[in-house]
Amino acid sequence: MRPSLILSPRDLEFLLHEWLQVETLTKRPRYAEHSRETFDAVLELAEQIATEHFAPHNRTADENEPHLVDGKVVLIPEVAAALQVFAEAGMNAAMLPEELGGMQLPAVVNQAVHAWFQAANIGTSAYPFLTMANANLLVAHGTPEQVQTYVPPMAEGRWFGTMALSEPQAGSSLADITTRAVPQDDGSYRLTGNKMWISGGDHELTENIVHLVLAKVPGGPPGVKGISLFVVPKFLVAPDGSLGERNDVVLAGLNHKMGYRGTTNTLLNFGEGVHTPGGQPGAVGFLVGELHRGLTYMFHMMNEARIGVGMGATALGYTGWLHAVDYARTRTQGRPLAGKAVSSTGVQSPPVPIVEHPDVRRMLLAGKSYVEGGLALGLYCARLVDEERTADTAEERARAHLLLETLTPIAKSWPSQWCLAADDLAIQVHGGYGYTRDYPVEQFYRDNRLNPIHEGTHGIQALDLLGRKVVADGGAGLALLGETIAATTARAADTEWADLAATLEDLVQRLGTVTAALWAAGDPESALANATVYLEAAGHVVVGWLWLEQALATEGRDGDFHAGKRQAARYFQRWELPKVGPQLALLASLDDTVLQTRSDWL
Amino acid sequence: MRPSLILSPRDLEFLLHEWLQVETLTKRPRYAEHSRETFDAVLELAEQIATEHFAPHNRTADENEPHLVDGKVVLIPEVAAALQVFAEAGMNAAMLPEELGGMQLPAVVNQAVHAWFQAANIGTSAYPFLTMANANLLVAHGTPEQVQTYVPPMAEGRWFGTMALSEPQAGSSLADITTRAVPQDDGSYRLTGNKMWISGGDHELTENIVHLVLAKVPGGPPGVKGISLFVVPKFLVAPDGSLGERNDVVLAGLNHKMGYRGTTNTLLNFGEGVHTPGGQPGAVGFLVGELHRGLTYMFHMMNEARIGVGMGATALGYTGWLHAVDYARTRTQGRPLAGKAVSSTGVQSPPVPIVEHPDVRRMLLAGKSYVEGGLALGLYCARLVDEERTADTAEERARAHLLLETLTPIAKSWPSQWCLAADDLAIQVHGGYGYTRDYPVEQFYRDNRLNPIHEGTHGIQALDLLGRKVVADGGAGLALLGETIAATTARAADTEWADLAATLEDLVQRLGTVTAALWAAGDPESALANATVYLEAAGHVVVGWLWLEQALATEGRDGDFHAGKRQAARYFQRWELPKVGPQLALLASLDDTVLQTRSDWL
Repeated sequence: MRPSLILSPRDLEFLLHEWLQVETLTKRPRYAEHSRETFDAVLELAEQIATEHFAPHNRTADENEPHLVDGKVVLIPEVAAALQVFAEAGMNAAMLPEELGGMQLPAVVNQAVHAWFQAANIGTSAYPFLTMANANLLVAHGTPEQVQTYVPPMAEGRWFGTMALSEPQAGSSLADITTRAVPQDDGSYRLTGNKMWISGGDHELTENIVHLVLAKVPGGPPGVKGISLFVVPKFLVAPDGSLGERNDVVLAGLNHKMGYRGTTNTLLNFGEGVHTPGGQPGAVGFLVGELHRGLTYMFHMMNEARIGVGMGATALGYTGWLHAVDYARTRTQGRPLAGKAVSSTGVQSPPVPIVEHPDVRRMLLAGKSYVEGGLALGLYCARLVDEERTADTAEERARAHLLLETLTPIAKSWPSQWCLAADDLAIQVHGGYGYTRDYPVEQFYRDNRLNPIHEGTHGIQALDLLGRKVVADGGAGLALLGETIAATTARAADTEWADLAATLEDLVQRLGTVTAALWAAGDPESALANATVYLEAAGHVVVGWLWLEQALATEGRDGDFHAGKRQAARYFQRWELPKVGPQLALLASLDDTVLQTRSDWL
Repeated sequence: MRPSLILSPRDLEFLLHEWLQVETLTKRPRYAEHSRETFDAVLELAEQIATEHFAPHNRTADENEPHLVDGKVVLIPEVAAALQVFAEAGMNAAMLPEELGGMQLPAVVNQAVHAWFQAANIGTSAYPFLTMANANLLVAHGTPEQVQTYVPPMAEGRWFGTMALSEPQAGSSLADITTRAVPQDDGSYRLTGNKMWISGGDHELTENIVHLVLAKVPGGPPGVKGISLFVVPKFLVAPDGSLGERNDVVLAGLNHKMGYRGTTNTLLNFGEGVHTPGGQPGAVGFLVGELHRGLTYMFHMMNEARIGVGMGATALGYTGWLHAVDYARTRTQGRPLAGKAVSSTGVQSPPVPIVEHPDVRRMLLAGKSYVEGGLALGLYCARLVDEERTADTAEERARAHLLLETLTPIAKSWPSQWCLAADDLAIQVHGGYGYTRDYPVEQFYRDNRLNPIHEGTHGIQALDLLGRKVVADGGAGLALLGETIAATTARAADTEWADLAATLEDLVQRLGTVTAALWAAGDPESALANATVYLEAAGHVVVGWLWLEQALATEGRDGDFHAGKRQAARYFQRWELPKVGPQLALLASLDDTVLQTRSDWL
């Protein structure tokens, strides 16, 4: 299969077809128009566009980050050019239903398509991906008029979208947002407030920008229960779809980041009086769905975005790892240890490719287990989206929904940690060269460092998993995860993978025991004090299970590719899963070291 | 004590005086002129200069990296200004003997002095620190004339020095260097070749640059046994010390790095004919010490540099951690979990400083255990330099030398890994702000990423420890380390730290068993295949021991500072040392997963 330093087409083929059997989705009515050929064709098109139009300006965009000229955000022209090719290929609308001009692709294929762009150029890819998350939310919760007004232009790539949650004083604490939305006689609202960390918040890439904004309507309940969701376009839209007045959404500043620089990240002011649409103060917004249910709707988008962040982390790790493998096979330096240590003749054999050094292979094998594990996790979750949407029975759909909910914090955080580690190892394989800006791995590392932060930090994901997902409905989510893993380990019982299966069974059992022990006293502060350790332990168990899944999927297949999969599974079993033991032991001990630490002691 | 975001004066006082008892060194003849007052005075002066002259341009230097104008390296003027203040304060010569114009400070105090500058501005601090390592090598191995010619100008800060080892084709494999040195009738040599990764290789900061260059004299033995060391000044020096002809050492290019940007990093060409000193081709060089012993001399400098790299990593982690603690105490966001989870009244209590959130305290406590552990390790090693040099008996000096040799790869690698982790956590504590260039922690993280690479990568340190240090002399180094740790654990037997001591005794015993098991077959390739895991396990054991040392040093002392030390020791015991178990188990299993992995499987 064609080689690439962006992603591995062979691995995608394995995961999508040999493992996840995505072709079976074409038996479902929603995907009946599709076939393996259409799936493969869109993946090949994605690879081609990513390779030819996204990857070439990845470094250029990093070196020339968005900046202000006369109050407008200036990007390098390659970004708009690439996004135009992307839009013309229909990629903006890959997952939308046909009636909205979309390809109606399964989520799992769409996720793989996205990964090509994320790996090639995470900064440029963010604009359409935020836009599609925005469109998906409107399709799910907007009025027919809102869908008709905003979704087709976003599907065509003529308008882009954002999600505007955070505020400077509130950060992750959405209960404290102070943006106000005051109802008007015509049913619209006027918004005033400041939003922070808005990716794609302003630019000249498209003629309009559709902001989805969290705000509070005066008189509503305090805290998160009083949050509503509004669609606030940069330019108001006339009934015929043409652009009208400038809305009072104004760029207040750009953030300057360590990496991920191609994506404009902004502070936005709403309703500060720079513009007065209709001669009135305030930014014009339109309520999405019901009043005070904004956070629920936004979580629809956030969950999708969290899996997307995990996939972005995986994609950045994957391309870094591919670059490291390529470098290790071509760069010569030093000699095998055995030869060097036993020979005292002083005769110099020629240097060998550094992949011949065990420590370099260690780093590459570790990286492989992280990035291929992360890709399996992201695609598995996307496959659950398809199940949630198209499985035959309501029960199957509910189970898929529950499992996806449980896995989402892991799908976000595990790749953010371990595929960043893969980029770290990719630098290390390159040695000094990897630390220079002449090689791409240093950028992947900087870009990837955002992923443990945005869309909810690692710590927030941990609270979501241990404080919400595994305890809701009497622990139904964790039970379902356990059953799902047990179904895999049962298949492994009489194979060479029985020992890995047994290890996983033991860890799942201990995870359940630990969960119960943590919550036994019913004290959330104690239960959640070490939640991050819980998240990390659960993440390794889940990815260990997905490595068993992959190992089983290689059965009966020979050759280097499948041998590599098996070796990576062995690596994960022998080198990674043992790390979980001390984590579970720490949790089981109800260790209060952190909880007892006083600020003055630091 | 005065607060600082660069380093903690209180912690330095604890480590130097309450723990390491450095004042006792003044009983040794070499340090008899010193007292606690002179030590404290130079530390305060270092803090003042670091605070006022180094820290303020740390970000500016990052944003304006060295660049070429008309073939000359241009730096921001703040660098030269800071280094002039540094030189005028006598800091260049802090450790040199008085007869060479130095302060004759103990190494341990000097290391603490250095740390202030490394933490304040690692890029600017590198110039004098490389210079001092160069001067120390010449003092140890140069002729009296070489010392007289080169050392005083370096001590005064009028000239700077470099170490020129690597070559583009050779990297860490010094056996493969091809720079040639041809003897001349007048006893000098003419050098030709290309050197890579030379920090401080060219600039206009000083009127001359003294390069210490590894090269091969034709006809010598192949490999590392044919390497000699030469001093090659940028400008030749007349007998009266005035500068003469331009030598043929020419800047061939600058490397552009992810971080550490203030330090010029260069490719240098020697003897390519740009200049022809004395009308002859070749760069003029002078042999240092004996022919073919260059690598031995360079390792003198390298070992010093490796401890310096570890201290640099610690310093960058330490300042990042201090910034994170400060941020966590002042930034308000969210509410305690318990309050949030139990209250359903909807009444909003005010947001709390984020240090109140357990997961933030977890990150800060982990960071504390890393950076204070790293500082203890670096200062302990520097204290061994003093013992090696001034202990009363030859036996004590030999023991100090052996222990220092054994600890050096750990002193280099452990802080490079874990104090980088501290900077990673410091970003995470800051959330999105930490990812922006408006806060310093993102730069500390980028700067610190160099440390696992230069002066021998993590993998090289691992081979040094497991392949050389712990097996030399029948394992004398490891045995001595074990005895040294046992002396500490014996003191802990009847204290509240008995459990930590018992854990350490067990780990030391297992480390010895594993070492023997790895080498039992006498096959270096198998023994060393997993050397990096060995390095990491040994590093955690060593730092665990130093936390026990610190905990014992708090006995009988009350207050927040000492309570914090004890809590960090507890954290290291409960959260960090358990990570070593699976590492030792993996090593004991003689796992060959990595060794059996074929390049084609990746």
